[in-house]
Formats: sequence, C-alpha cells, structure tokens
Amino acid sequence: MKQFLNTTHDPSLKSWVASANHPEAEFPIQNLPFSVFRRHQRDESFRGGVAIGDQVLDMRVACNSGIFTGLAAEAAVAAGQDKLNALMALGAPAWSALRRALSDALAEGSPAQSILSQCLVPTSEVEFDVPARIGGYTDFYTSIHHATNLGRQFRPDNPLLPNFKWIPIGYHGRTSSIGISGESITRPLGQVMLPGEDTPTVVPSRCLDMELELGIFIGPGSRRGEPVAIGEAEQQLFGLCLLNDWSTRDVQRWEYQPLGPFLAKNFASTISPWIVTMEALAPFRVPYTRSGEDPAPLPYLDSPENRQRGLLDIKMQADLMTPSMHAAGLAPETLCVTSYRHAYWTPAQLVAHHTMNGCNLQPGDMLGSGTMSGPGTGESAALIEITGGAKNPVALPSGESRTWLEDGDTVILRAWCERPGSVRIGFGACSGTILPSRPHAF
Amino acid sequence: MKQFLNTTHDPSLKSWVASANHPEAEFPIQNLPFSVFRRHQRDESFRGGVAIGDQVLDMRVACNSGIFTGLAAEAAVAAGQDKLNALMALGAPAWSALRRALSDALAEGSPAQSILSQCLVPTSEVEFDVPARIGGYTDFYTSIHHATNLGRQFRPDNPLLPNFKWIPIGYHGRTSSIGISGESITRPLGQVMLPGEDTPTVVPSRCLDMELELGIFIGPGSRRGEPVAIGEAEQQLFGLCLLNDWSTRDVQRWEYQPLGPFLAKNFASTISPWIVTMEALAPFRVPYTRSGEDPAPLPYLDSPENRQRGLLDIKMQADLMTPSMHAAGLAPETLCVTSYRHAYWTPAQLVAHHTMNGCNLQPGDMLGSGTMSGPGTGESAALIEITGGAKNPVALPSGESRTWLEDGDTVILRAWCERPGSVRIGFGACSGTILPSRPHAF
Repeated sequence: MKQFLNTTHDPSLKSWVASANHPEAEFPIQNLPFSVFRRHQRDESFRGGVAIGDQVLDMRVACNSGIFTGLAAEAAVAAGQDKLNALMALGAPAWSALRRALSDALAEGSPAQSILSQCLVPTSEVEFDVPARIGGYTDFYTSIHHATNLGRQFRPDNPLLPNFKWIPIGYHGRTSSIGISGESITRPLGQVMLPGEDTPTVVPSRCLDMELELGIFIGPGSRRGEPVAIGEAEQQLFGLCLLNDWSTRDVQRWEYQPLGPFLAKNFASTISPWIVTMEALAPFRVPYTRSGEDPAPLPYLDSPENRQRGLLDIKMQADLMTPSMHAAGLAPETLCVTSYRHAYWTPAQLVAHHTMNGCNLQPGDMLGSGTMSGPGTGESAALIEITGGAKNPVALPSGESRTWLEDGDTVILRAWCERPGSVRIGFGACSGTILPSRPHAF
Repeated sequence: MKQFLNTTHDPSLKSWVASANHPEAEFPIQNLPFSVFRRHQRDESFRGGVAIGDQVLDMRVACNSGIFTGLAAEAAVAAGQDKLNALMALGAPAWSALRRALSDALAEGSPAQSILSQCLVPTSEVEFDVPARIGGYTDFYTSIHHATNLGRQFRPDNPLLPNFKWIPIGYHGRTSSIGISGESITRPLGQVMLPGEDTPTVVPSRCLDMELELGIFIGPGSRRGEPVAIGEAEQQLFGLCLLNDWSTRDVQRWEYQPLGPFLAKNFASTISPWIVTMEALAPFRVPYTRSGEDPAPLPYLDSPENRQRGLLDIKMQADLMTPSMHAAGLAPETLCVTSYRHAYWTPAQLVAHHTMNGCNLQPGDMLGSGTMSGPGTGESAALIEITGGAKNPVALPSGESRTWLEDGDTVILRAWCERPGSVRIGFGACSGTILPSRPHAF
C-alpha cells in the first residue's frame, strides 16, 4: 500500500495542537476530516471546518490567513463555505494540495501556528450541519452477509438473489430527510399488516431498527450519458462518513414489493458530521478478494487498479443507550462491531456501476455502503439480524432487553481505522434518539 | 365542481394576444402555465415565463412593469427567477393572486397591453430548462391497469400484489438525470441476463421503452416529522407537467429484485417545459371512484374533500416518429391515448401517503403519476404493455414495426384537457430522441 502514502501519513508527525497527539485522539494530524459547523446557540452562519484534536479549524477564517497558496488556497476557500460541494467539485489534486498544506501548517514547529491558533474553535462549543447539499443519495447493499441474513427474513426460501454476485444492488434514497448526528427521530407512523389480520392498519411502527453503514461522498461528478470507467472511478471519491439508515421493518415487509423500500426508510437518515477523506484512509486499504465460488467481476467492474486498491478496513461499531441505562449511569451497550472490509463491492465499483448506463453523478452526492454486516458473531449490523428476526432479544446491562428500538433509545455509531505502523484515525460519532410518535387521529 | 372555478376560467374570456384565442390553442388565457426559458442560441440566462398563445411572457421583465401589486407582485418576482422553486414555495394564495393578475392583464381591453406586449417573446425563438431544482423525485405507480399489465410480465402468477389497493406504491427516482423536452437520450449500456445464458452480459439495452406519465410539482413543502393530513394535501400541489420515464426492460428484469428499479430507469427522465397549475386544471376534476370489490381507503388517505375533488381528466397521448417515417414525410404514429382519470390514487393521496411517516417534502419536489395505462384497447402507456410483453410488435405506416425503441426514434408525449363548457387547455409536448449507444470496450 506504500504507493498511496505520503508524509501526511507519517506516524511520527505531531501537531502543535496538543490534543491531536493523544494516542486515543480521533482527529490526529494524519486525519484532517472536513465538516460544516458553527458555534452553538449563536446567530452565526455555518462554515467549513477541519478537525484537529479537540479543536475545529475554522476554514472560513483560515482561508484568508495567507498561509495557503495556489491550488491549496483555492481548495481552502471552497472548504470554508457553508456546504462543501464546491470543495468536492475541485477534485483530487486540489484535495491533496489542501491536505498537504494543512498538514504542514498544523505540524509541530510550523511558523503558521501563531496565525492558525486564532482560527481554532473548541469542538465542545460547536454544532454541525449536513456537510453538503446532497442532490442524490443512492443506498447500496454491498454486504453479502447482510443480504443473506435479511433475505432470510423476507424470503426464507430464497435469501440471496442470483443477481447479488453480479450487480452492486442499489436503490435511490431520500435526500430531504437526511439529518446530522445528535438529532431526534420521531417514531414514524406506518401502514402495516399486523399478524393474523387481513386488512392493514396504521400504527406507530413497532419494528424500528437501525442500520450501521458508511456514506461515501462523490467529488467531481460526471456527465449524463458518459459512464465513469472503473479505472477512473477512484477519482470520484471525496471521503466517507457514518450513516444510520433507520428502518421500520413492519412497514418494509408490507410495502417493499415490487418497487423496493420507500416509507420504511425515508423518514430519516442520520450521518456523522465529519467526512474522512480518501487520502486519510489510504493506509487502511485491504486486498479485494473473492471466494472460490464467486464469479469474477464483469469487465466494467474490474481493473488492476481496483483489485490493487481493494477495500477499506474501517472498523464500525453500533452502541445503544436506553433511558434506564442512562439513569443508572451505565455505559452504552455495544450491539455490534464490524468492518467495511466485509463489503462485496469496492467504492470504485459502485461508481462504475452507477454510471455505466450514463446516469450522472454530481458533487455532494452520497452513496450508502448498505448495512455492513460481517460473517461472524457480533458482526450483524442491524437489529433484525442481531435478533435473528426478532426471535432473540438483546439483553442489556440494565436488565432490559430490546428486539426493536424503543422511545428514548439512543443509537451511537462509531468508526475508526487502526493498523500497525499507522496512527489510528477516527470518524467521531453518529447518534440519534427516538422520540415517541406524534398524536394521530387514525 | 363549480366551487373551484372563478372568472379566470370563464370560457368567454379572450386575450389581446390573438394566437391565444384560436380554438386549437394549447395556451389560451384560461391556461397560463409556467416555464423557465431563454432565447435560443443567445448567451442569456434562463428566467421564468408564462405561455399565452404562441408567445412567452418574460416574467423577469414583466415583474418590474408595475402592473402587479401585493401578493401578485411577490409571486411575479418569484416567477421571473431562473428556477421556479421560490414561486412554488409561496403557496396557493400567491399562485392564485398571480393568476388573477395575469388573467386581467392579458385579457382583451386590458390597459396593461401596451406595457406587457413589450415583454413577449415568440415561443418559436426560445429554449427551455428544467423549471425547478428538483430536490426529490418520487415515482408512484398509480394505474392499476399498468400495475396488472406489467406485473403479468414480471410475475405471471402474481400480477397485482396485495398491497396495491391499500398503499400508493412509490419509489425514489433519480433527479440528476431529469432533462427537458427536445433532448436526446443515448441508448444506455446495461447488465442483462440474455435468454438461454447463465451469466450476465453487458450490452446496449435491447428493450428500451417509454412510459407516459405526468409529473406533479410540490409547492410549500412540509417539515420532517410532520405528516400532511389528506385534507391539507391539495395545498401542496403546484401543477403538472408531462413525464417520460424511459426504461430498459432487459436491465429491469435482471436488477429489480429485491430493491426495485435502479439503472433500468435512472439514465434519463424527460419532462415537458410547461407546468400547468392546479388552478388551471380545476374545471377538469372528475369523481373519485372505487369499484365494488375495492376496499375503502384507510382514514389517512380519505377525506370528504379528497372524494369531492377527485381525480383529473387529463387526456394523455404518446406518439412515435421513426427516421424512416420522417424521411417519408409521414405524421407521427399514435401509440396510445389515455387519461389521468385512470389513476387509482389522487395527487392528494400521494402527498398524504408520502408524508405519513414524517418524510418531508420540499418546494420543487416532483411526484410521478406512474405509467398511466387505462383499461381499454389503445390505452396502454408503455411499449411493454402495448406489445403484450414483446409478443405483438406495433405496425407503423412506414411498413416498419417496433417492439422496443430503436436508434433515431423520437417519442412525443402530449396532454390536454377538454370538456363541454370549458376552454380546452394543453400541456405542450414532451419529446425525446434515442441516439445510438456510445462505443464501449466491454
């Protein structure tokens, strides 16, 4: 993997922001993720920021500090805007130039310290917004373990459909209801067919679930009618965030045929505020493999570069905190720990497939990885899988149990990368809390 | 239906724009649809316009003419912008005030004639753009005839799924690839499973189809977590356009399970430039009916207002022109004539269902009616139905036949409303031409 690395990944690099040098820091100088933020409870506008330790570098101020030049200066201006679409549109050379300049300026001994230290805002004082205008959101279905596990619930005789190993299966999601970590989700009403009934009923969903996913932000985009070749697809990838694809399984079961999930998922999707760039993730590539019984990818999904770059070993975790656990002072309970390395399709393959028919991508579009279940115990990334189809509730340290999410429950997603010889980098958290359903007349 | 009518619908009303008074005019003074336009082949910016006869009233100029006051003036400014989202956001009272003012100003004998006649551009000199930033596009499936006919192709044993009569079935479409009438569509590549094969292949789609639909533009929108009650849903409707939901059936067949259509439809959708407002359509409401074997709608989809307002009798037609027909000077061949009155669900029911789980709508979102097939011969609104699943090709006056669309074919959609006692209004055309697929290496 050495060919993807440069000195911005050097594990010996330290920052003059001391908190970034802590071994447990999520945002060391090797990470440098982007968000959109403002100081909370103030009448400020949102602007772009870069995480360094427990601080946010205010890019709207920093871009005028005179420390950025050339392509990095152009990228710095784009990174200070209220949405990051312009930064995403600039493409990999500009992203790389800005990363290089930020790494130099935030490194121990940098002459920029005196200027940039005035551009820092403590993360504890800020709130975040969705970091891009997400014009299109496509959720894929790239874990073969999830596809098989979930397929078993919905189609016991036919869990893994024959197209799975040939097509990166995906569908269009809803962009208007994408929100940011820390938000509350009102339990949705849904039309469901209750067991033993022969006519449907409207109830607050009784089977509210989470899905542990990653969101992939698209950079420059493509033109309608022009497929992105697999060898060029990597250049479309700006970075990744956490994504909770909240789902109501009772609604999904009744509505999903023949056109796929709709109201079962479009009431809310929650993402983490920090976008970790592909360049920061470069040290954590893992080989792209297929088992002996899997077909080789079709040529439009295959390239030496794609095979070589492979997948990303991003550890992913979902925790649950209930009101009773919170009252008892208990720590959140871990529901699962998995990795993005379990994806069947690489991000580049998703881009090549999505555009092979000429469908155009735009800067700021988001692709979902799909629920990233792994093969092992404890690696199932949604309650419907963890509970074996609601058969085995999860026992909690408070003495409670959960089959589905209850009112007041908070789900916290986390992700991080670590490997020997590299500094650990984190994604921060993606949390959401369930509120009771609204009063309704039907 | 009288209660929805006002003097802007008066059939005796004439305009000082003489072409608007022709009995065959699509855009008489009773219509007044909105678009976004510029004079073609000039370096101009797009701005909003209103159709009157064979002229476009340039709203960016007209809004400064001094003839609009109060709420109508606010709406006129919004109607002059490069996208109509701001006009859509203003809501029904503003739309109605602007319609009232436009009707007065464009009527025979209006003192505004001398000013507004300087704001007209001949339609023959303009080109159009997609009239709104479409943040969300949801395609429904509201013709029970289409659902049954198409279901028969994909699921012979189980054509109409049990949820159809309870749920307005829909899915999220792709917004980035929505284009405007007159465009060309490159034949998409697709991964398909050819008959007799056991591994898929990538080919230019061999089963390229059209779907005759209407697009419904959303007005003010709603907040996440807050359902729009059926009794309020009508206020969310700005107006309607034509929509061709191009589809590759060979791709659809192989990819659509379990998450619905994706690449089979997202390569292109074409809409007509003119949005005919709900107020212009008011005289063409028809009763909302169910057959004796149909269940009553669930309460969240039922209201006295919805039953009373009902559906819209919008006649819809799809024509085909092939290169050979064009060369021979033949007129386009009509593939089908149907009506939006065949919808199983009203537009208000689509809004109430879409938001019942708290999914928020935004100004400029578009809902598709779904392929609007009727029950009768000649009322099937897609080639897959017209040809009975590719069994009975369409004979053309050139001696050719068509099972699916071929390179060079142009599909022209049209719609209009007519009923005794009202002036006929039209939607204009929505055309698209198929170009050969791009060279490809796989």
